[in-house]
Amino acid sequence: MQPIQPFHAVAPRLVDVATGRAPANLVVRGARWVNVHSGEIIPDTDFAIVAGRFAYCGPDASHAIGPDTTVVEAEGRYLVPGLCDAHMHVESGMVTVTEFCRAVIPHGTTSMFIDPHEIANVLGLSGVRLMHDEAMAQPVNVWVQMPSCVPSAPGLEEAGASVSPADVAEAMGWPGIIGLGEVMNFPGVASNDPMMVGGIAETLKAGKVVGGHYASPDLGLPFHGYVAGGPQDDHEGTRAEDAAARVRQGMTAMLRLGSAWYDVAEQVRAVTEMGVDSRSFVLCTDDCHSGTLVQEGHMDRVVRHAIAQGLKPVTAIQMATLNTARHFGLEREVGSATPGRRADFLLVSNLAELTIDAVYARGVEAAAAGQLLLDMPAYSYPPEAKNTVRLGKSLAADDFAVAAPAGANSAEVRVIGVVENQAPTKALTARLPVVDGHVEGDEGQGVCRIALVERHRATGDVVNAFVKGFNYRGRMAMASTVAHDSHHMIVVGTDREEMARAANRLGEVGGGVVFFRDGEERAMVEMPIAGLMSDERAEIVAEKAERLLAAMREAGCTLNNAYMQHSLLALVVIPSLRISDKGLVDVDRFEVVDLFV
Amino acid sequence: MQPIQPFHAVAPRLVDVATGRAPANLVVRGARWVNVHSGEIIPDTDFAIVAGRFAYCGPDASHAIGPDTTVVEAEGRYLVPGLCDAHMHVESGMVTVTEFCRAVIPHGTTSMFIDPHEIANVLGLSGVRLMHDEAMAQPVNVWVQMPSCVPSAPGLEEAGASVSPADVAEAMGWPGIIGLGEVMNFPGVASNDPMMVGGIAETLKAGKVVGGHYASPDLGLPFHGYVAGGPQDDHEGTRAEDAAARVRQGMTAMLRLGSAWYDVAEQVRAVTEMGVDSRSFVLCTDDCHSGTLVQEGHMDRVVRHAIAQGLKPVTAIQMATLNTARHFGLEREVGSATPGRRADFLLVSNLAELTIDAVYARGVEAAAAGQLLLDMPAYSYPPEAKNTVRLGKSLAADDFAVAAPAGANSAEVRVIGVVENQAPTKALTARLPVVDGHVEGDEGQGVCRIALVERHRATGDVVNAFVKGFNYRGRMAMASTVAHDSHHMIVVGTDREEMARAANRLGEVGGGVVFFRDGEERAMVEMPIAGLMSDERAEIVAEKAERLLAAMREAGCTLNNAYMQHSLLALVVIPSLRISDKGLVDVDRFEVVDLFV
Repeated sequence: MQPIQPFHAVAPRLVDVATGRAPANLVVRGARWVNVHSGEIIPDTDFAIVAGRFAYCGPDASHAIGPDTTVVEAEGRYLVPGLCDAHMHVESGMVTVTEFCRAVIPHGTTSMFIDPHEIANVLGLSGVRLMHDEAMAQPVNVWVQMPSCVPSAPGLEEAGASVSPADVAEAMGWPGIIGLGEVMNFPGVASNDPMMVGGIAETLKAGKVVGGHYASPDLGLPFHGYVAGGPQDDHEGTRAEDAAARVRQGMTAMLRLGSAWYDVAEQVRAVTEMGVDSRSFVLCTDDCHSGTLVQEGHMDRVVRHAIAQGLKPVTAIQMATLNTARHFGLEREVGSATPGRRADFLLVSNLAELTIDAVYARGVEAAAAGQLLLDMPAYSYPPEAKNTVRLGKSLAADDFAVAAPAGANSAEVRVIGVVENQAPTKALTARLPVVDGHVEGDEGQGVCRIALVERHRATGDVVNAFVKGFNYRGRMAMASTVAHDSHHMIVVGTDREEMARAANRLGEVGGGVVFFRDGEERAMVEMPIAGLMSDERAEIVAEKAERLLAAMREAGCTLNNAYMQHSLLALVVIPSLRISDKGLVDVDRFEVVDLFV
Repeated sequence: MQPIQPFHAVAPRLVDVATGRAPANLVVRGARWVNVHSGEIIPDTDFAIVAGRFAYCGPDASHAIGPDTTVVEAEGRYLVPGLCDAHMHVESGMVTVTEFCRAVIPHGTTSMFIDPHEIANVLGLSGVRLMHDEAMAQPVNVWVQMPSCVPSAPGLEEAGASVSPADVAEAMGWPGIIGLGEVMNFPGVASNDPMMVGGIAETLKAGKVVGGHYASPDLGLPFHGYVAGGPQDDHEGTRAEDAAARVRQGMTAMLRLGSAWYDVAEQVRAVTEMGVDSRSFVLCTDDCHSGTLVQEGHMDRVVRHAIAQGLKPVTAIQMATLNTARHFGLEREVGSATPGRRADFLLVSNLAELTIDAVYARGVEAAAAGQLLLDMPAYSYPPEAKNTVRLGKSLAADDFAVAAPAGANSAEVRVIGVVENQAPTKALTARLPVVDGHVEGDEGQGVCRIALVERHRATGDVVNAFVKGFNYRGRMAMASTVAHDSHHMIVVGTDREEMARAANRLGEVGGGVVFFRDGEERAMVEMPIAGLMSDERAEIVAEKAERLLAAMREAGCTLNNAYMQHSLLALVVIPSLRISDKGLVDVDRFEVVDLFV
């Protein structure tokens, strides 16, 4: 597929087609035009497309049909603009940008705004560039937000790389960069942290959009300080009043429905109940696992859900098309089926259900009846993106040992308490047994081991601690190099030998997630790209992830979203107790604390 | 007044004020917040302002009040964002940008998008630059659209200058240029005229907005061709279906209420009756005489009128604030009272009537109770802008003589027929008397003389013809260097001596409008800047213009808007018969025709 040419380069061709002096590549006849500009649904509308863009949208495109024009009879179906995901992380799908696109195009997503925050933590600016270049090669529109907060918590963790305002300035010159990724350090914005001020300033100097992330229910001065600092959108609201407050302040409220985020239903009440103007609301997914993509869908799922909350279909569709395009200054390119825009659209047979019969991207039929029709070759990442798990040595059981205080029979230690369906952890304590001078986990109390294995600089460092909530039984270990946000390696296990096996195995394959039990590998999702992404197809990854979840359940873990809980245990920006390469971190006090109480 | 600093340069100060670490310059307490983002009116809202921008908008700004903070008690009045005029020509007010601003600031206009099309016809790119530089010096926001169609009708007239795509490209690099001015050559767009294609392409390459002007009721293929060519807005619609058609095609519908344009009431029915989404509608004036500004107002008049048509006040205000800002990609700068935006706002005591008690521009009180409070020194134009009426010689009565065919006692000639309240003229004929070998006007038939005096290149050329409809009696002449679009000099008169006097008088003063009767100067509006603009204040200009109209009436002319009719007689893009420096122009056939039938 040819890259799309800029509008101004093809405008005369569009004019020729619109006026009947030249034939279109594609004509769609007799559609119900879901017009997101006027908010109307206009029957009996024809569309003529050339050079990947709409040239004519009106009552009769007969004049644009030549001998080589493909003519599609819509037969009264709805023509809906291609859907936009306003904020998302490809890495959450555990696949490459290409494989992500392959998975979501049949679901009607034709524009994505991706924030490669995870790879930036591993490979820095060069990792962002790799995903940027892959994004630019797609047959659909993938714009990239430059990650803003790498590392997430300077001083409390050492990521694989860092991002400076100078990096931001450099990235703003790349063709596919649309703005700055979610500025998560919201206290930093409200306190004029120079890294935040600098990154935001470089983005605004480039005329691009600053993404927000205000993850607090406090709508008082910290919120006002954050808004005054420049972020232009936010997807961290959860309540109707959060969405309303953001819109009133001139921000775009991004309502999120991801694999584990359910923030649309509550916030859309700002529109359906409080009567807030819907134009500043957009929909996004933020994080979708490959399983969700394969089994439930993507932006079609979000729009369908939004309609089910009582939005008019055209209003919900505006939130995933025009509103998003306007937010990013791309209204002339995407977000509506009107002349000049990229011919990204869906043919839909039931609007309220958003039943997608066919997906067109840049005037080419890209999917039909849920099946991808495009030829999308796998994208190849260079070796430097694939050798990022640097352990420095072969790990042994002893690396996971915790020496007890001299002569103790038991020890009082801090324990990370996992809470089902919540991102924050609890800061617990437990009295654990000491065996041969080492503190051990206690199946009876539901406490097992956790280790953070440094993997960026091959220091061989391992931080050991304890965790409660997974309820693993028997001899097992699970290791993952997806370990937000600095993405070292998190190993959770009941047995030191198993933990060493799991860690070394990930070192061999270049990262991913692996599960060992009774000395055997029970499941593995290889993620050789930065230790974060598979180079396999989404459906294969989803299958492997399913096997992983099964292995976890077989070992006694019945926690909802247990894999996500595992991968978030090093997220030192969310309370209360976490693990990092620096030690146990008390996130309420933002300091490293001792294992022993 | 300091020029406003970019947001990114002052963001840390805004954050400090928002969070209470530094005092604001200005705090407004207890206002009803007309929130154009949410569409709500929110009572009991405080605003803190620093560096000319809103820093805090919320329930309590006490924390931002320091010893030097000015505190304004709104006492429940409405705080409305400063009004934006989305498309207008300063030259129509016959005053400079500065004097225009002085006149409209008390009426609540704080942002203007001006198209200096008239001066471009006289002085070309350098004239645009002069007005651009004056615009940049204002205490309110004046963005400039680069004129696109100079001359309006190549081949049918020779303007003082011309604009090429290269000129457009150059202008796009100037700081105050927001886009391309109305692309009036709509057949040229639909036929891929290289000048139109080139100017549009240069604008889009610069990421700026292409202004439209589709002055035809035909919503068929010519319209679709025009849209496909790239214009992004249009203010030439007159019917509800015109506005709806533009919005459906992804354009912004600009609804116009000028001194002589009344296009809001009819078109706003697209919203109030047809239910079209209002977000793509904006309000503008296009052309306002100084008299309208002084006596009736500016954007306050338009918004008030829109509300009177049945729009919710907040919807009408959106059309003059947020919608306009979004259209021009300026949503982060103007168009709402929210953090980061320029603190341009009105305190309004009655919302439906839009009773403006005070106007603030960039956080400074600019007007109160209709009186300007700012010190606005007159802007000085350089000599080259003031010596543009080049006649080449002193004109004599003989220059206005029309030699009759040899031996004829009368002659059948083409006559321009002025139609009251309409821009198009009629192509009439009349049999006129011949005296001493010259064709003369005929008071009995209501036919008098018209002459087009070349004034850009000092050729001394005069084109003579006849006009019907003014009904002038006795010996008189009226001359004007405001002569759309190429702005030569139009002289209408009953007597050749009077015509020579009037023409020479304008040569002396550098242009304007003058009225002679019985050998005496009865009225004059001097417009030494390019022959288009006075350097006096709007109220003085309005007074002089009033005297001019009185002189016209005293000489028998009772036509509505007679001055405008006079100044449009050379507008060779509107049917049917016009005069230009090339001769009489048949605008239906786009060709020069002979005076004699």
